[in-house]
Amino acid sequence: MKLITLLTDFGVEDGYPGIMKGVIWRIAPDTHIADITHAIRPQNILDGALALQRSVPYFPPGSVHVAVVDPGVGTPRRPIAARLGEQYFVGPDNGLVTCLLRETRRRGETAVFVHLDRPQFWLPQVSHSFHGRDVFAPAGAHLVNGTPLEALGTPIDDPIELDLPAPRRTPHGLQGQIIHIDHFGNLATNIEPLHVQGLAPQQVRIGPRLIPGIARTFGDGRPGDLLALWDSAGYLSISVVNGSAAARLTAQTGDAVEIIVDNPVESGDNLG
Amino acid sequence: MKLITLLTDFGVEDGYPGIMKGVIWRIAPDTHIADITHAIRPQNILDGALALQRSVPYFPPGSVHVAVVDPGVGTPRRPIAARLGEQYFVGPDNGLVTCLLRETRRRGETAVFVHLDRPQFWLPQVSHSFHGRDVFAPAGAHLVNGTPLEALGTPIDDPIELDLPAPRRTPHGLQGQIIHIDHFGNLATNIEPLHVQGLAPQQVRIGPRLIPGIARTFGDGRPGDLLALWDSAGYLSISVVNGSAAARLTAQTGDAVEIIVDNPVESGDNLG
Amino acid sequence: MKLITLLTDFGVEDGYPGIMKGVIWRIAPDTHIADITHAIRPQNILDGALALQRSVPYFPPGSVHVAVVDPGVGTPRRPIAARLGEQYFVGPDNGLVTCLLRETRRRGETAVFVHLDRPQFWLPQVSHSFHGRDVFAPAGAHLVNGTPLEALGTPIDDPIELDLPAPRRTPHGLQGQIIHIDHFGNLATNIEPLHVQGLAPQQVRIGPRLIPGIARTFGDGRPGDLLALWDSAGYLSISVVNGSAAARLTAQTGDAVEIIVDNPVESGDNLG
Repeated sequence: MKLITLLTDFGVEDGYPGIMKGVIWRIAPDTHIADITHAIRPQNILDGALALQRSVPYFPPGSVHVAVVDPGVGTPRRPIAARLGEQYFVGPDNGLVTCLLRETRRRGETAVFVHLDRPQFWLPQVSHSFHGRDVFAPAGAHLVNGTPLEALGTPIDDPIELDLPAPRRTPHGLQGQIIHIDHFGNLATNIEPLHVQGLAPQQVRIGPRLIPGIARTFGDGRPGDLLALWDSAGYLSISVVNGSAAARLTAQTGDAVEIIVDNPVESGDNLG
Repeated sequence: MKLITLLTDFGVEDGYPGIMKGVIWRIAPDTHIADITHAIRPQNILDGALALQRSVPYFPPGSVHVAVVDPGVGTPRRPIAARLGEQYFVGPDNGLVTCLLRETRRRGETAVFVHLDRPQFWLPQVSHSFHGRDVFAPAGAHLVNGTPLEALGTPIDDPIELDLPAPRRTPHGLQGQIIHIDHFGNLATNIEPLHVQGLAPQQVRIGPRLIPGIARTFGDGRPGDLLALWDSAGYLSISVVNGSAAARLTAQTGDAVEIIVDNPVESGDNLG
Repeated sequence: MKLITLLTDFGVEDGYPGIMKGVIWRIAPDTHIADITHAIRPQNILDGALALQRSVPYFPPGSVHVAVVDPGVGTPRRPIAARLGEQYFVGPDNGLVTCLLRETRRRGETAVFVHLDRPQFWLPQVSHSFHGRDVFAPAGAHLVNGTPLEALGTPIDDPIELDLPAPRRTPHGLQGQIIHIDHFGNLATNIEPLHVQGLAPQQVRIGPRLIPGIARTFGDGRPGDLLALWDSAGYLSISVVNGSAAARLTAQTGDAVEIIVDNPVESGDNLG
C-alpha cells in the first residue's frame, strides 16, 4: 500500500490539508493518507518535532511523512526529504526532523538527507507561502510512487537540528521541564527512564507540590488524584486521574519538574 | 473493502488518532479508516455511546468500529469486542456499547461479546494509558483482516450497560431530558416517537418556554424561530432555525424537556 | 481511483461527516474520501463557496465534491449536482457553487447542472434536516460509481449564484474587502491581480494603517512585520510575518482594504 501522513500547523478550517491530499492523489492515485495532526501551534517547530516522534514509529515501513511547520516559507530555507531507517520524512529544513533523527541514531539506523532542489518534482507553479501544497505534497507523492529519494534532490549531511531541552542534575536529583501538554491536560516532560537509571525516585516536584513516587498506572490513583507516571510515549508525565493536570496546576510548557531521589549524584550536569 | 471507524475522546491535536491508523495499517494494509469523532467530551461514556448509535448503522455490513472513551484505562476493566448484527464493536467494557446493543436488541439481531484477553492480537508492548493504540486498534485490525471474533478472546455475556436516562410520564404528558447538544446548538432529547405513540402532543416545554406543537421541518419556521421537531437521528430536538438553541436558551445536557399532550395517561411511570 | 471530498459546516464533534462516509461506502466501496473542511461558519454560504474555489482545482479530474452548507434544508430549495469542467459538485442550490462556476467560465470550460429529483439515488428514508446524509452523500456516491450526471436528475440552467462582493475604483486607486480570515490570521481580500493590471500600486491601506507596497514573499519582511502580498490562492492578503494580522488589527470579514496607486483611473466603477 502507498501511505502518506500529514502533520502541519495549518488548522483544518480553511481546507489547506485537504488541498494537499488533492495534490498527492493527482500524482499518486490510491494512496492512503492519514492526518496526524494539523493543530501544531502556529510556527512551533518543537511541537511538530515531538508529534512526529510520538507517531511515526507506529506506521508501516516505507510510509512517507509530510510535515509542514514552516515559519521560514518564502525565505531561502531549504526544502528537504530524508530516509530515516524505514520511514521517509518530507518537510522544511528547520529542525522539524530533529526528534525523528535522534531516535534513528539511537536505534543505530541510517539517515539519508536530500535537498529538494529539482522543480520537476513540484507543482508547475510554486507560490511563496504554501509550499505544503506546491513542494512538499508533490515530493511526498513522488516518493510514495517509488521515485528514489536520491532522485528528488542533492544529498546533504547538515540538516538543521533543534537544541532539545535536556534534563540536568540537581542537588536532590534531576530537573526537567514540561515539553508537551496534551488534550487531556497531561503534562509530558523531557525526562525519560534512561535519565533515572540507577536512581531511586522518591518524589516528583512541580511548583510547590510534591507527588509521592512514580505510579505505574492511572489505576494506582482515584479520580482526581495527581500522579506522576511514565506516559505512553515513554516520558515522565504529571497527570490527574480522569481530570486535567494542566487545569489543576495552571501549568505551561517550559515549567520545571524535578525528580527527587534517594541517591543524588553530583549536581549541575546536563543529561542531554 | 476493509473498513474501520474510530471514535474517541482523544482530540486531534496530539496525533493520537493518527497513531491508531498507523497501527491498523501495519496489521491490515489498505483498510479504509474513517474518523467518526475524536471530540467526545473527555471520559464521557454516554456521549460516546450516543455518537456510535447515530453513526454505526450507516456503515457497510462488516465494518469494525473501534471506540475508545476509557476513563478506566490502567484499571482491571476489560477490553472487549462484539458482533452486533452486521457490525463489529471494539472498545473498553464500560457501557460505551450500550446504545448500539439496545438497538441491536430492538431489531431482533444477535449480539456476541468476547473479552479481549489474548495478547497475541495486541502490540507486543502494552502501555498503561493508551490502549487505543496498544490493544483496541490491533484487535480491530485483526478483525477486519478476517480473524474470527471468537478467536480474539473468551466469550462473555455480561458487558457493562449504562443506565440510560428514560422519559417518564407527567400529569400533563411526558418529560425527557437533553442528552446531546450538537455543533449547531440543536438540543437532542431522549424522547423518541415510540414514547408518544397514541398521544396528541400540543406543546413542548423547556424551562419557562412553551413551543407550540412539533414541527415537521425547519422550513415550517422562519430564521430565528424556536422549533421542536424530530431530528435526523429520530429524537425530539429543540432547535432555532438557522441559529443555536443552546445559545438562545443557555441550555445544558440534563435539562428537562416536557411534551404536553391532549390526552395524558397516568403519571410517574418510567417509559424506559 | 474513486474520489469524493466533503465540505460542510457540520463541525467534527458529532460525527456527521463520518456518517456521510458510511453512506458513501455502502454505495461506492473503496472510494477515497478527503475532508476539505467541516468548519465553515454555520450557514455561511460564501465561506463555503470560497473554500471550494481554493481546493477543488487541486484534485484529480473526475473527483466528486460533496458540499453541504445548507441553511435551507427542509425548505423547497433544490438539491443539485453539476459537472464543472473536469470536476463534479453535489450540494444544495443556494449559491455554494458560485465561485467554482465563475472559475469554470473564466477557463472557458463547460458547466452542466441537474436538479437532483430522482429519489432512487437517495437513501430510502430522507429526513427533513440531514440531506448531507440522505441525499447528497448518496448522489455523490452514485456519481463516483459512474452513474452519468444526467441520470441523477432533470437538467437545469438557473443555479442560484451569490452576488460576490467586487472591488471598486476610488479616487486613489481601488478598494476591496476582507473576504476570508484564515487559521494564521491572514486577511484575504477580494482583490486579484487582474484588478490592478496596468496600475502601479504604491501603498495598501487597512483602517488607519498604510502598508508600503506589495511584498513578493514573507521573506521580504522580518517576524512581526505587517505585509501586503498575493496569497497562495491569488488574492491580495494582509499578513504579519510569523504572526496574526487578524489579531494585530482586530480585523473582520467585510473590512475595507484599499490599494493606492500612482495612476488612478476614474473613480466609483465596480470592478466585478
